[in-house]
This record gives sequence, structure tokens and C-alpha cells, in this order.
Amino acid sequence: MANSPSGDSVTDRLLRVLETFTPTRTVQTAAEIGRRAGLPTSTAHRLVGELVEAGLLERDEDRRIRIGMRLWELATRSSQALRLRQAAMPSMERVQARIHEHTQLAILEQDEALFLERLSSPDSGANVTRVAGRLPLHASSSGLVLLAFGSRELQERILAAPLAPVSRETLTDAGALRRKLAEVRRLGHAIAPGYIEAVSTGAAVPIRDETGTVIAALSAVLPRDAAVDPPLVELHGAAREIAAALRDHG
Amino acid sequence: MANSPSGDSVTDRLLRVLETFTPTRTVQTAAEIGRRAGLPTSTAHRLVGELVEAGLLERDEDRRIRIGMRLWELATRSSQALRLRQAAMPSMERVQARIHEHTQLAILEQDEALFLERLSSPDSGANVTRVAGRLPLHASSSGLVLLAFGSRELQERILAAPLAPVSRETLTDAGALRRKLAEVRRLGHAIAPGYIEAVSTGAAVPIRDETGTVIAALSAVLPRDAAVDPPLVELHGAAREIAAALRDHG
Repeated sequence: MANSPSGDSVTDRLLRVLETFTPTRTVQTAAEIGRRAGLPTSTAHRLVGELVEAGLLERDEDRRIRIGMRLWELATRSSQALRLRQAAMPSMERVQARIHEHTQLAILEQDEALFLERLSSPDSGANVTRVAGRLPLHASSSGLVLLAFGSRELQERILAAPLAPVSRETLTDAGALRRKLAEVRRLGHAIAPGYIEAVSTGAAVPIRDETGTVIAALSAVLPRDAAVDPPLVELHGAAREIAAALRDHG
Repeated sequence: MANSPSGDSVTDRLLRVLETFTPTRTVQTAAEIGRRAGLPTSTAHRLVGELVEAGLLERDEDRRIRIGMRLWELATRSSQALRLRQAAMPSMERVQARIHEHTQLAILEQDEALFLERLSSPDSGANVTRVAGRLPLHASSSGLVLLAFGSRELQERILAAPLAPVSRETLTDAGALRRKLAEVRRLGHAIAPGYIEAVSTGAAVPIRDETGTVIAALSAVLPRDAAVDPPLVELHGAAREIAAALRDHG
């Protein structure tokens, strides 16, 4: 609808504007948004102005633009992200309180692991994960669970593409990744020692819906030398609880 | 940009589409969206199709539409809602663990209290608050804090408008509300016994930025007969901690 001379729809342009905001770039000028979104300056100013008017973006006293609270509210209040996260929170809080390490919830989104929640305490170790951030499927323990229990098409697509290293220990060989995925299916969980950062080990378990389909991964980021079995017992118990909570409040 | 014959912009139409999704209406057909957004059927189908293509909405196997994970991700990852919430989480978790009652974080948005976070345990009492949900300023303890420490213009606007009852005990008289706001400023916190539900009392304290401006409210929902002083001590301590965390990671 309402295509521009260059053929892109207003929805495309809106998406490109939203995509210029990242976890580390939360405030921009309208001109910067236009440049990064590949839009002519006048188009960018008009579109940003409209989005500010609607409350989907906000303009601060310095005329810089940020994501609007109204957009967050509309995108969150009826989202599956919130439903999953609310069902998971009591169990995640208990796991986090017991193991004192980062406890995280991720789903598969566009061939990556998208993190819906992360609970940490001040004494938790290093962790690059962010809420609403992503990690590659082949490198993160959550991603390995989502990949190992995902569709055959997904697995072949990931195995056929270049496997970029995140750390020196990330599996970048398709054969090694294929064997790792078989191990994850056999064990029922994924251990990723140093795949993301040399100092930490990821441990993840699947969360299943009532049909047995894996819909999310619950994970912990542990110091590299920590024992993984006690956290895994906590994670497995929590995953079963979360699945039950989703069934009950589905 | 790209105005329709009726004069509304595509941004307006997008906003109307997003607003048809609510906490209790998370899945709709394209036709229902069109009807609720006041859009012609063909326009609704085209716009919904474009938004699905962009991942901002998602279509399930029954061709019903829901908010897309991609929209949640883009609206969340760089938002002030996430920043505030992340700064508040460690303190909120501690309050929740100590008082075993709902612990909530709210900001002022469009003359209402918008809740960014709510932590609860299975044994917490009744509570209507939802994440990304709202409550009236004059009825909720969070709203009373945001109103009492808000601008004079905001106070006069709310005091001049009809004060709708939420429960039988909600303050609906402008004079009574004015006296309550003075009390909140004098005490430094708000107590709302039965204003939302007869069985519970809200207790809220302000969170201030480095200039002293109140930017959020931290609250607890207590059983009606519970003592309010111990939770208030926890809330005040947590509010100071959250303010410090925001300064440190600002």
C-alpha cells in the first residue's frame, strides 16, 4: 500500500526506521535515522514526525528520537513474548535464586535465538545476553537446543551456511555441529563450554508445548569451571513447571 | 505521508491496527482487525499482509493474526522501558522475596500509570495489574505517586476531569483527591486502601532521577489487613538503589 517511487511500501520504511534502533543505539536524530534507514532526508523527517505524533517514537528536549513507550506497550501487552515470559517467571526466579547465575529464556526467531528474559544477580559472572537480544543458534546453548529439536529444514539451512565463530571455541565445522546436535537430542540438554566466551559455559534445556514440540529454551550461564549437573537438574525441573503453567493458562 | 482519501496517514492506520490488540484479545482475523480499526476490509487485508510480510504481525496456521515477535523485539531492545526495568529488577526481586507480595514498577504515560514490570509469587493475593497494562492515576498507589509529584498542569487536568470509580472506595471527589495528593507529598509515599479492589491496599514510593524529578513509582499490592510500614521500608530502600543504578548505568 502507498508505495513510494522506489517501490518500497510504507511498512518497509517503518521497519527500516525501527531497525536503526539497537540495544546500544537508543537515541538518534531524525537525520541519522534517515541515513541509516536509507531514506531521503525529507521522507525520514516526515515519517519520524508522524511516528512521534502517534507516540510510537518520542522526541526529547534535544529533539533526539527514541522508541516510544506507546510502541513498547502496544508491542508487549498482547504478545506471545509476554505470555511465555509471565508463565516462566516464577520458575526462572527460583532457579536464579538457587544457582545464583544468569537464567535465561529464548525462542527461535529468524534462524537465531531471541532472548525474552534474563535474570541475573550482582554476583553472576560474565554474560553477553540481553533481553530482546539475539545469539547465533550454533554458538549459544539455547540456540543448540532450539536447533537440535527444530525442523530438519532449519538444521540443514544452518548446517549449509557459514558457521561464524563467536569465540575461539565456537563450533564452526558442520560435521562437528551435526554431532553436537545428535548429542543434545540424546542427552536432552545442551552444554556449550566457551562457545560464546572463554570464561563461561552455557547450559540449556528445552521447554515443550502440550504436543511435545520444543517452543523455547531455558538456560543458565555458568562460570567455566562450575559443575553443570546441579544447574541442569534445576533447569529441567523448571522447564517442566513452565510447560505446565503454559498448559494451565494457555 | 501517503495519506488515504479519508485523510488519515498510514501511521495512523498502523496505530489503529496495533491498538486492536489488547491483553485479553491477542489473536484476531484480518477482518476483525479491519472492523475494530475502522478500516475498509480491502485496506485492512493489504495492511495486515504487509505487516505480516515484515514480521511485525504473525499469522498462525488458522490464518489468525497476532503481534509479531519481531515487533516486540524492535520495540523492546532499545526502549526506555527495558532500561528502567533492567535497572530496577535486582531491587524488585529482593523486595518481592522479602515481602512475598506483588512488586511493581510504573511510569506516567498519557495521563495513566503504565506498568513496566510486575513480580509475583504463587501465594501473592489478588491483583489486577498487568505488565504493559495501565491503571488510572487517581485510583492506584503508583498513579497517586506519579500524580502527586507530577507537574501542576497534569494535576489540574486530572482534578478537572471526571474521576471514575474503580472500586467503591476510589477517591472520586476532586477535593478529597487534592487532599490525598498533599498527603502523598508530605509522607513521601502513597497508600491506597481498597481504591482498586476491596481486598487489597496499594503502597507506592517515588523513584527519582539525578535532578530529583520523579520518573517512576515502585509499589506493592498488599492484603487489606497487612501492615504497610515494613513493605514501605523495603520499597523506599529499593527506590534509592534503583535511582543509583540508573545514575551508574545511565
